Amino acid sequence: MTGERRALLNIGVIGTGSIGVDHIRRVSGSIAGARVAAVFDVDAERVRAVAHEADARALDDAVTLITDDDVDAVLVASPGPLHPEQVLACLDVGKPVLCEKPLGTTVEGCLRVIEAEVSLGRRLVQVGFMRRYDHGYRRVKQVLDSGQVGDVLMVHAVHRNPEAPDGFTSDMSLTDSVVHEMDTMRWLLGEEISAVTVVHGRSSPLSAVGLQDPQLVLLETVSGVLVDVESFVNCQYGYDVGCEVVGSTGTVSLDTPTYAAVTGSGVRGRSVPADWQERFCDAYRAELQEWVDGIAVGDVTGPSAWDGYAATAVAVAAVESQSSLTRAEVKLADKPALYV
Amino acid sequence: MTGERRALLNIGVIGTGSIGVDHIRRVSGSIAGARVAAVFDVDAERVRAVAHEADARALDDAVTLITDDDVDAVLVASPGPLHPEQVLACLDVGKPVLCEKPLGTTVEGCLRVIEAEVSLGRRLVQVGFMRRYDHGYRRVKQVLDSGQVGDVLMVHAVHRNPEAPDGFTSDMSLTDSVVHEMDTMRWLLGEEISAVTVVHGRSSPLSAVGLQDPQLVLLETVSGVLVDVESFVNCQYGYDVGCEVVGSTGTVSLDTPTYAAVTGSGVRGRSVPADWQERFCDAYRAELQEWVDGIAVGDVTGPSAWDGYAATAVAVAAVESQSSLTRAEVKLADKPALYV
Amino acid sequence: MTGERRALLNIGVIGTGSIGVDHIRRVSGSIAGARVAAVFDVDAERVRAVAHEADARALDDAVTLITDDDVDAVLVASPGPLHPEQVLACLDVGKPVLCEKPLGTTVEGCLRVIEAEVSLGRRLVQVGFMRRYDHGYRRVKQVLDSGQVGDVLMVHAVHRNPEAPDGFTSDMSLTDSVVHEMDTMRWLLGEEISAVTVVHGRSSPLSAVGLQDPQLVLLETVSGVLVDVESFVNCQYGYDVGCEVVGSTGTVSLDTPTYAAVTGSGVRGRSVPADWQERFCDAYRAELQEWVDGIAVGDVTGPSAWDGYAATAVAVAAVESQSSLTRAEVKLADKPALYV
Amino acid sequence: MTGERRALLNIGVIGTGSIGVDHIRRVSGSIAGARVAAVFDVDAERVRAVAHEADARALDDAVTLITDDDVDAVLVASPGPLHPEQVLACLDVGKPVLCEKPLGTTVEGCLRVIEAEVSLGRRLVQVGFMRRYDHGYRRVKQVLDSGQVGDVLMVHAVHRNPEAPDGFTSDMSLTDSVVHEMDTMRWLLGEEISAVTVVHGRSSPLSAVGLQDPQLVLLETVSGVLVDVESFVNCQYGYDVGCEVVGSTGTVSLDTPTYAAVTGSGVRGRSVPADWQERFCDAYRAELQEWVDGIAVGDVTGPSAWDGYAATAVAVAAVESQSSLTRAEVKLADKPALYV
Repeated sequence: MTGERRALLNIGVIGTGSIGVDHIRRVSGSIAGARVAAVFDVDAERVRAVAHEADARALDDAVTLITDDDVDAVLVASPGPLHPEQVLACLDVGKPVLCEKPLGTTVEGCLRVIEAEVSLGRRLVQVGFMRRYDHGYRRVKQVLDSGQVGDVLMVHAVHRNPEAPDGFTSDMSLTDSVVHEMDTMRWLLGEEISAVTVVHGRSSPLSAVGLQDPQLVLLETVSGVLVDVESFVNCQYGYDVGCEVVGSTGTVSLDTPTYAAVTGSGVRGRSVPADWQERFCDAYRAELQEWVDGIAVGDVTGPSAWDGYAATAVAVAAVESQSSLTRAEVKLADKPALYV
Repeated sequence: MTGERRALLNIGVIGTGSIGVDHIRRVSGSIAGARVAAVFDVDAERVRAVAHEADARALDDAVTLITDDDVDAVLVASPGPLHPEQVLACLDVGKPVLCEKPLGTTVEGCLRVIEAEVSLGRRLVQVGFMRRYDHGYRRVKQVLDSGQVGDVLMVHAVHRNPEAPDGFTSDMSLTDSVVHEMDTMRWLLGEEISAVTVVHGRSSPLSAVGLQDPQLVLLETVSGVLVDVESFVNCQYGYDVGCEVVGSTGTVSLDTPTYAAVTGSGVRGRSVPADWQERFCDAYRAELQEWVDGIAVGDVTGPSAWDGYAATAVAVAAVESQSSLTRAEVKLADKPALYV
Repeated sequence: MTGERRALLNIGVIGTGSIGVDHIRRVSGSIAGARVAAVFDVDAERVRAVAHEADARALDDAVTLITDDDVDAVLVASPGPLHPEQVLACLDVGKPVLCEKPLGTTVEGCLRVIEAEVSLGRRLVQVGFMRRYDHGYRRVKQVLDSGQVGDVLMVHAVHRNPEAPDGFTSDMSLTDSVVHEMDTMRWLLGEEISAVTVVHGRSSPLSAVGLQDPQLVLLETVSGVLVDVESFVNCQYGYDVGCEVVGSTGTVSLDTPTYAAVTGSGVRGRSVPADWQERFCDAYRAELQEWVDGIAVGDVTGPSAWDGYAATAVAVAAVESQSSLTRAEVKLADKPALYV
Repeated sequence: MTGERRALLNIGVIGTGSIGVDHIRRVSGSIAGARVAAVFDVDAERVRAVAHEADARALDDAVTLITDDDVDAVLVASPGPLHPEQVLACLDVGKPVLCEKPLGTTVEGCLRVIEAEVSLGRRLVQVGFMRRYDHGYRRVKQVLDSGQVGDVLMVHAVHRNPEAPDGFTSDMSLTDSVVHEMDTMRWLLGEEISAVTVVHGRSSPLSAVGLQDPQLVLLETVSGVLVDVESFVNCQYGYDVGCEVVGSTGTVSLDTPTYAAVTGSGVRGRSVPADWQERFCDAYRAELQEWVDGIAVGDVTGPSAWDGYAATAVAVAAVESQSSLTRAEVKLADKPALYV
């Protein structure tokens, strides 16, 4: 009377920081076809609480989780420097892995993942660049791909966070924030970034001493497209990302969707998202759902290990430029056929 | 090592027309904690295909589905006149039921459901007014409830569909389209509608002969708020809903979220949704997810049988006004305590 | 060495209330080819001050001003009931006259002006419906005339003032405020209004006792276009006019131009005009400049005495409907060839 | 009975190219208190036609015009290199002069004007930076001055023209287009620009060979504010200027006013201005009217010779940077007390 019912995908989650917990709640609460089966974090108390809430098992270390028979796929949300090892362990046992950005904090770490995946001969790694799943950025890409605005010549982007956490550095503004633009631009424009120049001006009196904020970052693509990105991690008023692509015959720019306008006392106002969780809530859901759906049919089509490597390579060059305030070139390895 | 895992909610779906199939795909593809277990439709061939795609059982009649041991909750998407019987059958076996609007096409049908549910003493029925789950309408309600715009005095609404199917009548414009505003206004304003006046003017040359299109519908609430609704089912250009609430100190109006602006040849343009599926895609998902989540904790909090009844009562008055083109009053039964 | 220099047009202004003074300052400060030559008002002290500021002569009565040899054209800004007599006096001496709305407060008064002008055989009267000179309304008309949105079927309009002066009545909301929509709709749609229905609902707690506010006014045109107008004279938050025209294939809606967006504390806000002077400042200037330019070439092309008459006829019907709350028909005289 | 009537200001216009003719028509057609008294251009035939249309005298050379007894004030719209001599001639005879931008094409030329005006001891020179009269830029400045967005940290600007005339060079993109941003930023931020860096990327295939288009120009102010300006003179789709100022607590961005939205075929569109004449029509009028009004009371308050000099100094540095593609510093002379 009925065919074989598709089993739920059992996901193991490594890392129960803010983003890890967000992912766990998302899988449990709004993703079809998956459940959180196991959780690990170095903070044993926290992991127990989170596992309990998710009705999942709390495991004792990352490798145990990755190799667990009841874990079909792994979501890596641990601190960035640990990512390559954990992703490599997933590749070792042939399990699909969604690795939060960055794939690695060093170029070398990323290249190790690429080598392992290339040896394996098939894609198992996806990197968590969720903007590719945002309705707005997808619409921008669709317009660019349609040729409606002609040849792309320039891009203007802004990326603002309301407040940076204590200890946030000028480098982190590049590796944690602008890295999203680095990936997004590569994806939107369909080409690699070849150079980065960080430019510093006046810093906000509300930003911590020693933190250059905002920063202006110029990216150059292989074909010569110039991208300017404002990264401002203490803009105070909300979370705001913008992107205008200038083509030879027209432009396309990202809207921040708004839902209502309130008029009173001489002003018509619309809300700005409070934080990235609000702004990209739907994108994160789409990312996870498409990842789960792809695994069910044996396909991983999201941002690849190559994308993770290239973004890290650009971020590393940006950090270099940030310290010298001169232009830094980005030299990429040859792109393996697996990623073409 | 782990607690009792929450089982998936097994949903039985009655009706595999366009909206039924949408719901089935939504449950299968984007809802956590549920699956489609069984499907019924009078079209046996169609039901088999749909059931196969959803990996569900195709059952032979509605009652069989409702009483099936492996069906935990029922989603009614059959033709409107069948709704009351099917919902009553669900109440008989104490199963939660999400009934697509309308709850019934007659006031009597709706009242029978209310009586049965009141006898049962707890809410099991939810009516599919998905706008209450739309981000935009929720934001409008939040603003109204906050008192930011003062006392509500008037509402202007538009509801446009690109093209009506063959055979669509002037009455259907009221019972199928404007019924959404009837429910939305009751919910936004927190009070009942007491009268309806349909006003006719020029009809579109592109609408079928005999179909009055657009129509202007005036709703009056118990406290005297006037609501004007344009219903236009052949506007050609897309799907467009609007709502501006005028308060004593300000206004709040619904935005249609936009995702990008494309500029070319002297025009900056933004897309209008193609159809209601696109416009309310997220609302339908939220409706289903919240329904499933509520059942898991024994709670049904969405639009109630009373809401379904009241909306039908207003729609029936609108049809009456439509034929006489005079004002029709809406007389509601006493509201049972269950719904207060 | 040079041709005959065009002399400045000497304008006589009757009435130095708020609108009269606005006109006087406008002519003196921002209109090419004209000057204020003489001023009259019943308030002798006020007229002397105003005349002094404008470097004009203060005259003792309206007829003296109208017949003065050094007055080439007259601007009537006295109280409405006096308009017909004063306009007739201008026609008697063959001088162009720009009469603030209304042309008359009674249908009879307006008809007397029409008869006199028809006897004269050429147009000398223009009525001060300044919206026809607003960039936005002109753009709406241009779109309608181009056929881009197909056949016009319905119009939604709002007209909100921040605060009504003491003594403002429900009738004045129709004759002073909505009269602008009455003229605007006739002009935009190119046809007469045949009926009016005023509908009352909840009144603002911030409006004076006895003043129905807001009111909903339904206009019907000869071809059957329905126009709904919200008139709200105590909306508190600013001055706001809106107009959306629904055609058979698309819509065109008026924008309130905005000049900057300010973002702070989670809100992106844009200013709403404070009052009609701000909103229609450019329209008033264009009205006056085009009137002056037209006189220089012997042409009066703005809103005619017929337009003034028709608007008054609709306003009178609206007042009738306001007292009975039933539909009132508008019966117009035959249109003289002069106005076709 | 009346005071002394203010005489019309007799304006002499030098140059009857496109901008000169625009100014002449503006004075004749929409400015109160002034008339075009005399016109000169090297093209004798053209000047005769223009003078005839304006009902003005055609004179034989610039000096004749400047010294003519019947010329009260001079408007210089000749080619840029001639500006300093002609402005100096006006200063010689003590007549107010409105000089189209640039004040001079060289720093030296501008300094000569400054010296002469300082010797004279009072301001007679105004430079035609009309953006300072634009409603939008004025609103931006008002917001900045109010402190609403905190300390200014960064500015993003775009300046797009639909099509450059034949022979337009990469330098002209800086000296003719971006010079407006150079002045606007100085005025908005209330401080001087200290360095310029021109960055080149991909050039439009629709721009002439040899023309770098678009260009990205980075301006740095004395206090460290970074301003990025995209200058694109062949954007094809229309005329578009944008400006977003980022402060420490919020942002303010310029809107291009829109007047209506047209919806059809799935798109809601708003017009983009066709050219700078359309975009800045009102600003040009305000510039002229305020200039004329100021002269009447012995005041010149618009952009000064110093402003003209500083903008030229920045433009010269930009040209230098454009050829070397390195950062060029701007060194200004000491600012005379006359301009403080």
